[in-house]
Amino acid sequence: MNTSTVADKIIALEKHAMREWLNGDPSAFLNIYSQDYTYFDPSLEWKLEGFDKIKAIYDSIRGMIKEESFEILNPSVQVYGEMAVLAYNLHIHTGDKCWKENVTEVYRNEESGDWKIIHSHFSMTQPK
Amino acid sequence: MNTSTVADKIIALEKHAMREWLNGDPSAFLNIYSQDYTYFDPSLEWKLEGFDKIKAIYDSIRGMIKEESFEILNPSVQVYGEMAVLAYNLHIHTGDKCWKENVTEVYRNEESGDWKIIHSHFSMTQPK
Repeated sequence: MNTSTVADKIIALEKHAMREWLNGDPSAFLNIYSQDYTYFDPSLEWKLEGFDKIKAIYDSIRGMIKEESFEILNPSVQVYGEMAVLAYNLHIHTGDKCWKENVTEVYRNEESGDWKIIHSHFSMTQPK
Repeated sequence: MNTSTVADKIIALEKHAMREWLNGDPSAFLNIYSQDYTYFDPSLEWKLEGFDKIKAIYDSIRGMIKEESFEILNPSVQVYGEMAVLAYNLHIHTGDKCWKENVTEVYRNEESGDWKIIHSHFSMTQPK
């Protein structure tokens, strides 16, 4: 696959998983996390390591998130060999509220041919 | 280089650049940013793209940062081919204050053999 094809595929995977996530279902994200997954969330004191830990957190909030819509803005996909770094501004809309986050997702093309996320960094956008 | 050697090298590059950065000198970081560098900072409304833009920001604050000490805690380095994802909890100490950040740095081994950072994501650690 060439770079633009990989970028399209990565963004499609992300959009699908985010749509499910913001509708209360973490399964689509869990399906594309690697076993050696690492994770930053602004609400956690420490970096989290390992698929089992993120699965436990996601399972504990299954069905609890319901947002109306979201936008993946300003996306970039830096593709090198079997790795692709997706970064974007995420705007989540519910009613007249807009919640803004910065998102980094590092994808790796596994031996199976599937793209999996090996590292995520979510943070709040807080311009001065 | 094997994985642990790469990890040691990446962490050493990061520590050196961070030491200089927290002493007011952004040059060590600028020296290891790629031309296609992308960047998230919590104080920016949008993701930043391109070496020239980060250089302009860093040059504008040269000499203005003076912190006493820092710790790179809980680091992980996920190495695949020419790519390495460094993630860590950063604690910055000045007086009796401790400033906590989550840091992701995606490194790429360039054709020259040098490791360069292609993407950074800094955010504030804000446990509930």
